[in-house]
Amino acid sequence: LTLRGASTEAPGGDPSLLRELRSLVGEGSVLDGDAPGYAADESEGSGLRGSPDAVVLPQSTAEVARVVGWCYAHDVPLVPRGGGSGFAGGAVPLEGGVVLSLERMKRVLQLDPGLWRMRVEAGIQTAAVRRIARENGLSFPPDPGAAEQSHIGGNIATNAGGPHAFKYGVTGAWVTGLQAVVAPGEVIDVGGPIRKDVAGYDLKSLLIGSEGTLGVITAAWLRLIPAPEVMLPVVATYRGTTEGCDAIRRVLEAGIVPATLEYLDAGSLAASVRSLPGGAAPDAAFLVISEADGERAEAARLQAELSDVLRPGAVDVRALQARSDVEELWRWRDGVALAVSSTRGGKLSEDIVVPLDRLAEAIDATVEIGRRHRLEACSWGHAGDGNLHSTFLVDASDAAELERAAQAAEDLFDLAARLGGSISGEHGLGWLKRGQLERQWAPAALRLHEQVKEIFDPKGLLNPGKKLARLVA
Amino acid sequence: LTLRGASTEAPGGDPSLLRELRSLVGEGSVLDGDAPGYAADESEGSGLRGSPDAVVLPQSTAEVARVVGWCYAHDVPLVPRGGGSGFAGGAVPLEGGVVLSLERMKRVLQLDPGLWRMRVEAGIQTAAVRRIARENGLSFPPDPGAAEQSHIGGNIATNAGGPHAFKYGVTGAWVTGLQAVVAPGEVIDVGGPIRKDVAGYDLKSLLIGSEGTLGVITAAWLRLIPAPEVMLPVVATYRGTTEGCDAIRRVLEAGIVPATLEYLDAGSLAASVRSLPGGAAPDAAFLVISEADGERAEAARLQAELSDVLRPGAVDVRALQARSDVEELWRWRDGVALAVSSTRGGKLSEDIVVPLDRLAEAIDATVEIGRRHRLEACSWGHAGDGNLHSTFLVDASDAAELERAAQAAEDLFDLAARLGGSISGEHGLGWLKRGQLERQWAPAALRLHEQVKEIFDPKGLLNPGKKLARLVA
Repeated sequence: LTLRGASTEAPGGDPSLLRELRSLVGEGSVLDGDAPGYAADESEGSGLRGSPDAVVLPQSTAEVARVVGWCYAHDVPLVPRGGGSGFAGGAVPLEGGVVLSLERMKRVLQLDPGLWRMRVEAGIQTAAVRRIARENGLSFPPDPGAAEQSHIGGNIATNAGGPHAFKYGVTGAWVTGLQAVVAPGEVIDVGGPIRKDVAGYDLKSLLIGSEGTLGVITAAWLRLIPAPEVMLPVVATYRGTTEGCDAIRRVLEAGIVPATLEYLDAGSLAASVRSLPGGAAPDAAFLVISEADGERAEAARLQAELSDVLRPGAVDVRALQARSDVEELWRWRDGVALAVSSTRGGKLSEDIVVPLDRLAEAIDATVEIGRRHRLEACSWGHAGDGNLHSTFLVDASDAAELERAAQAAEDLFDLAARLGGSISGEHGLGWLKRGQLERQWAPAALRLHEQVKEIFDPKGLLNPGKKLARLVA
Repeated sequence: LTLRGASTEAPGGDPSLLRELRSLVGEGSVLDGDAPGYAADESEGSGLRGSPDAVVLPQSTAEVARVVGWCYAHDVPLVPRGGGSGFAGGAVPLEGGVVLSLERMKRVLQLDPGLWRMRVEAGIQTAAVRRIARENGLSFPPDPGAAEQSHIGGNIATNAGGPHAFKYGVTGAWVTGLQAVVAPGEVIDVGGPIRKDVAGYDLKSLLIGSEGTLGVITAAWLRLIPAPEVMLPVVATYRGTTEGCDAIRRVLEAGIVPATLEYLDAGSLAASVRSLPGGAAPDAAFLVISEADGERAEAARLQAELSDVLRPGAVDVRALQARSDVEELWRWRDGVALAVSSTRGGKLSEDIVVPLDRLAEAIDATVEIGRRHRLEACSWGHAGDGNLHSTFLVDASDAAELERAAQAAEDLFDLAARLGGSISGEHGLGWLKRGQLERQWAPAALRLHEQVKEIFDPKGLLNPGKKLARLVA
């Protein structure tokens, strides 16, 4: 793929671009390229910012198809945008062109609580999906960090995870059907309100996690399940990584299936302990949150088992009961990233995955890699899934430090590959990790990755430059 | 794709073919094309039989790569073969060429019970995987019908289901990593002993269910979970489809998550009731099996809830307790297909999927379609997943009847598409349903399906003619 400058080949700045788009979807659905809020996503802390030539806010799949068709006919890059909560720069319009924000497509198209399913437009907030499910006695389990900001379409396009993915799986596991607009502007539906389908190649899974580079997801059929009656977490602290990771392993060895199995290492605990409900002992340097859920008696039994299994070597083990305490705990957990960030004002945070038996090694190596690059480092994340948020703390105004952090991230990707893991468990490749897949896949697989992109997007206009397998094929 | 005759372009019957293959993988690993057992699969009842030019039994991924490479260099069709238990003719070498049977690749490559995972070669029997898991206190939940015959590689290549897929999902949900040989003879690994991975496009899911048309799966990392302490089914009978399907709906509406939610309609129950443990009342014309599983007390509580919910309108409700009774029940359930088959000596059985709210309609329509084509028809299957084994009984020696059954199947596929379902929930397209995807997908999706095939298999040599989206593109 060749990157094209927005100001040369694409009709950026050209008022005819806006005019033509307005004739397609209506005056009120097209904003100027400098409309605030569409040039960056959560990767802005890494200095990433684009400049769209226009922002389109379609109100239907048909409008999306018209816009994709127009962009394809006029060789204009198109960047689909959800809630903008991505960490990999996937929604940043680095080559100009059209930002297609799904924010106005947030209707619930069908809700069948008795059938454990709903159909939604892509622009609905993930938190709204979860809320609607809950109000109907059901649960949509995926709970990525920024659920109030992120859209379900964005979560699908990145196959987002979250703490409860340990028991319930990632977003894709809950999507039974997708509607998408593919090049050069056609609508396809794969799957539907059905729970099994092996008729065709799994194009649904191919679109899930494709980060807007293969098509624009416009609607989804979601699978739901009965909500657990209670959620009863256990919070345990340890003196160090070894003791904590031993405890995590014991949970699996005991044959317990908790809903979550989260951890914070010493650095992330230090950064966030002040607001930890109930606090922690001074010698606590590792924290585990494992939650039992289900029917009340069963969850209580599981919680007691979890407490027993987590106790050996622990500084402290607390079994939470009150719903308010549980909610407070998870609110705190949601704020960990911010707390870590505020230590030095900025951070570079990755989301590597390793086999569970290499978790302790990866946690220690994160700190060691930081040390090598003269950076404070820490990690936290989804221990049971071997998914670390390995993080280097930076002063975002210090270019040299940012550069060292980028180097440290390279070492981190090396580590993930060396341990037989993945360079991304949640955030995807986006722009920041483009080309990094080369560490992880054989040449034949990389070639197939590139050919998949070519058949879906022969002109390379869909979110160009993002999720590249290699920088040079 | 053009079908090529084995006897013309491919060097079928040519002793040099056998000689060259033997030089690649050794004398003992290549059988003559007429070696018994490689010309057909379970679709033989529909008259499907091929004739391979050679049968290769590789012992390693490297040998598979050598054979694929050789076939690709010499334009020889290659048909990967698992246990041969498929119903769609996916393993039948209709164009001659090489049958590549994975039967000698059945090692457990790694077993980590404490980490809930194992790595196996593709040729291991699914029942062996399940047994090894169980011996280690774990469960590999997918339980397709022919687990003693089928290989895990074949189950992955068709994304097989089974009764317990209702709670636990289909085979693909338990595969975290795949090794495969792709054209023109290269080994790729996607995923691994990890539980999350969003780094690349989901080539793993693309290979899962691809029926040997995109590559040859040689090994897999499987996810396991702690085995449920007990499995406690409830068997309920009803006077008809309406009462039975109402009961099934009530299970979901009550917010109960059973492990299975199976049904038999009047015809399949009549065909199999003689061996049903405990028998059934004379007016029983619909049967539901819903199983509670988990820790003993919790499963007992769930089983009691299931019994209560299934009771209204029932002829009889039985809650099984003893392990031997449970095993006997599932052995009987496994034999339903055979019992139905033996009614008239033959059957044409499909595996359509419909949204759960259309289940009763699809069950009735199956019988009605049969009537229209003067065929006795019945269905049974995975009610909770909306997955019917809609079946037309035939005398396999009566060509006219077979032809009418084929016509009835067409009506059935129409029905599935019209109800928003899928033409296949378990068996795949194989040869018998090639081209039928057209009923279900838009042209753009069909085109992408064909292009996916082209990038993985530009010469069209991998299981040629199988899983075609359209007959004429």
